[in-house]
Amino acid sequence: MRNILIIGAGRSATSLIRYLLEKSRQENLFITIGDISEEAAQKFTKNHSNARGIQLDVFNEAQRKEAVKSSDLVISMLPARFHFEVAKDCIEFEKHMVTASYISKEMESLNNDAVRKGLVMMNEIGLDPGVDHMSAMQVIDRIRAKGGKMLLFESFCGGLIAPESDNNLWNYKFTWNPRNVVLAGQGGAAEFIQEGKFKYIPYHRLFRRTEFINIEGYGKFEVLANRNSLKYQSVYGLENALTLYRGTIRRVGFSKAWNMFVQLGMTDDTYTIPDSENLSYREFVNLFLAYSPTDSVELKLRYALKIDQDDLMWEKLEELDIFNNKKTIGIKNATPAMALQKILEDKWTLAPEDKDMIVMYHKFGYELDGKKHQIDSQMALIGEDQTHTAMAKTVGLPVAIAALKILNGEITTPGVQLPIAKEVYEPILEELKENGVIFTEEEVTYLGYNPENLHLG
Amino acid sequence: MRNILIIGAGRSATSLIRYLLEKSRQENLFITIGDISEEAAQKFTKNHSNARGIQLDVFNEAQRKEAVKSSDLVISMLPARFHFEVAKDCIEFEKHMVTASYISKEMESLNNDAVRKGLVMMNEIGLDPGVDHMSAMQVIDRIRAKGGKMLLFESFCGGLIAPESDNNLWNYKFTWNPRNVVLAGQGGAAEFIQEGKFKYIPYHRLFRRTEFINIEGYGKFEVLANRNSLKYQSVYGLENALTLYRGTIRRVGFSKAWNMFVQLGMTDDTYTIPDSENLSYREFVNLFLAYSPTDSVELKLRYALKIDQDDLMWEKLEELDIFNNKKTIGIKNATPAMALQKILEDKWTLAPEDKDMIVMYHKFGYELDGKKHQIDSQMALIGEDQTHTAMAKTVGLPVAIAALKILNGEITTPGVQLPIAKEVYEPILEELKENGVIFTEEEVTYLGYNPENLHLG
Repeated sequence: MRNILIIGAGRSATSLIRYLLEKSRQENLFITIGDISEEAAQKFTKNHSNARGIQLDVFNEAQRKEAVKSSDLVISMLPARFHFEVAKDCIEFEKHMVTASYISKEMESLNNDAVRKGLVMMNEIGLDPGVDHMSAMQVIDRIRAKGGKMLLFESFCGGLIAPESDNNLWNYKFTWNPRNVVLAGQGGAAEFIQEGKFKYIPYHRLFRRTEFINIEGYGKFEVLANRNSLKYQSVYGLENALTLYRGTIRRVGFSKAWNMFVQLGMTDDTYTIPDSENLSYREFVNLFLAYSPTDSVELKLRYALKIDQDDLMWEKLEELDIFNNKKTIGIKNATPAMALQKILEDKWTLAPEDKDMIVMYHKFGYELDGKKHQIDSQMALIGEDQTHTAMAKTVGLPVAIAALKILNGEITTPGVQLPIAKEVYEPILEELKENGVIFTEEEVTYLGYNPENLHLG
Repeated sequence: MRNILIIGAGRSATSLIRYLLEKSRQENLFITIGDISEEAAQKFTKNHSNARGIQLDVFNEAQRKEAVKSSDLVISMLPARFHFEVAKDCIEFEKHMVTASYISKEMESLNNDAVRKGLVMMNEIGLDPGVDHMSAMQVIDRIRAKGGKMLLFESFCGGLIAPESDNNLWNYKFTWNPRNVVLAGQGGAAEFIQEGKFKYIPYHRLFRRTEFINIEGYGKFEVLANRNSLKYQSVYGLENALTLYRGTIRRVGFSKAWNMFVQLGMTDDTYTIPDSENLSYREFVNLFLAYSPTDSVELKLRYALKIDQDDLMWEKLEELDIFNNKKTIGIKNATPAMALQKILEDKWTLAPEDKDMIVMYHKFGYELDGKKHQIDSQMALIGEDQTHTAMAKTVGLPVAIAALKILNGEITTPGVQLPIAKEVYEPILEELKENGVIFTEEEVTYLGYNPENLHLG
């Protein structure tokens, strides 16, 4: 029996645990699920004989060390800031570790110890980061193996509502952490490179600088820039690429409508609103509009944002019931972002039968034998249900597959790492394909950064 | 002889020092000017027999303590963050102290010691803060003395170019610290109250939510909201006022044009631009516009900001020579804000004969005997020249007058304070009037917050 300890039994752990339980007899696995809530942990075991759920508080040092010590590999699905204590225990007791989170500076600092002790500490192996790294590096390495030189890399990912459950004007529901959606793009300008030029978009313009893509079978989507494209220069070895751009995928029209909230200041998370608990939705909107002795909140908002009465933007606002003077925010010391989230959750929470969708799209531009080429690669996955969502599958399956391959000695290179080595991504992508996470590639004309195929001159 | 130590011989110290030198014989004053540059300090003494300039490094403890110890009163014109070390010495050696800066938490913590030792530690006695406090509290106290109840307080201040020197399309030049102008309004939403309703304006909307005022003899100006109006509730005892709004005055049209920089992201001070030193002005502009294989920087900017070819906004940009591909930023590791400042300084630096102007405008709404009233109070001052600017006079004279009145025992209440007590503001405002800083009052119809005198209904 090999013991796997999974810490954190949240929504992202469902498909991860199902995969490991299904393999547990054949692979001689015993799965311990530790969570701050013993009940949550046990719910995940489904009374499987090769699994148990335990109460585990990562801040209880003795309890945590005991759990790590008696395992062969540890998977931490906790929020990223809690990984480090677990990781130090893994070093101490010489256990492999897997997380789906970005490598923190603290985590990075354990690299020498991990290498010395022969431990694989695999991170960034969920969806984004994770599937994006692997699917991108597979194509980039193939281009390089042929002697190609990378010119352009653009990569987009989105967690969306599946078409069959898409029944609101925003073409959006919360399929993941709503707070992250409300705060998306904040904290600094988006930075990227287009045709060798550095480009910056401030937060308040982000939702007006979108581009478009088509996903086979699913139609047109829009993309808005992520903040941190430049760090992929070093991660993927793309220092010489002329274009480097990462973005988030939404249905067309979402960003233009979301921009209304940004412009008004409703996504601000830096101050709290007095008596927010008793504030009506209507009063919340009015916080961001000048006082008038005569004009309605509706007219003031239309004027402020220059919305015509027959504009779809207006219907999107009305659909959210944002002018209601009876519904209250109901949260003490709420920031505008928290209040907005509350209003959106009324309308954007998944119904029991709703399904989610993950879409990913890469563009690889390169030069080979003096000619320029481009490969576009895309993936779309619809969730099974609200337990095995597309998000849970694309986050959890790579983690589970990696864990098993580490235990089985198929992934062996030690150290604190992310999945950009061929020995890591090839077998994992292969097995993801069997689970429905399938990228399809197409050779297209290389245009450089010229998203609208503009005629020159 | 009474010894006054002035620390920091900057541009704001000219009128302060002139005032004290002029009074020095009659009042038996000896002025010591200490600055990190001995030359700068000595320049200010003008070989006056009642003054000397010394090299003084506030981080040299022995030197600083010696200078404080041998004085009777200390004026610190250093940046606010350097006051605290000086203030502790003043407590230790039992010296009065005057600054033009906001009271920091650290400064506030010295209050008990100051009271116990009978020391006057007067702060916020420059222009803004300073003249604003005194001129506002004089009217507020008068209204209250009559039994009036404050309903509305709006207060605006601006440092501008004098009409006779106003010769660019922006109607603006840098008459004070350019960096503060470029960064104005950043760091959080502007908060204020209008007719009992909290209101918030995010930074990216600040320059589009302006209001208008008229200054007698100088025409129409615009006002944009300051960040911190709410703190004046407690400072002035206006907890029950329905409207509380503080703002910055500019010439009409400035904000609409400045908003172009805000929208593009050019005022961002949170990241540095690669190779900023060699970046041309044109390349700087292009950082904030999407790449195009065909379109000019000019056309991309017009499209991004929806500027027609015959719009005055466009001429304002051209006047700044912002599309020049020869002129370079010339600053290493410049943020966008630093680069923008450089471009603006080419055009907005004062010519030798230019004069500046200070304008201040208060509105006081109140209820008395069941009726509503309003008093508007305004002040405008043109600078003498580039040494005795309107800014240097309005900042330095209140400091100087306060210092002398403290020495002469006319201002005696001890403690860390700002000038909102009648015993302080009455004699100082009286003497400021003799120096040309004159407020004129007018009774107007009370409209509440209704800046455009809209007809109701």
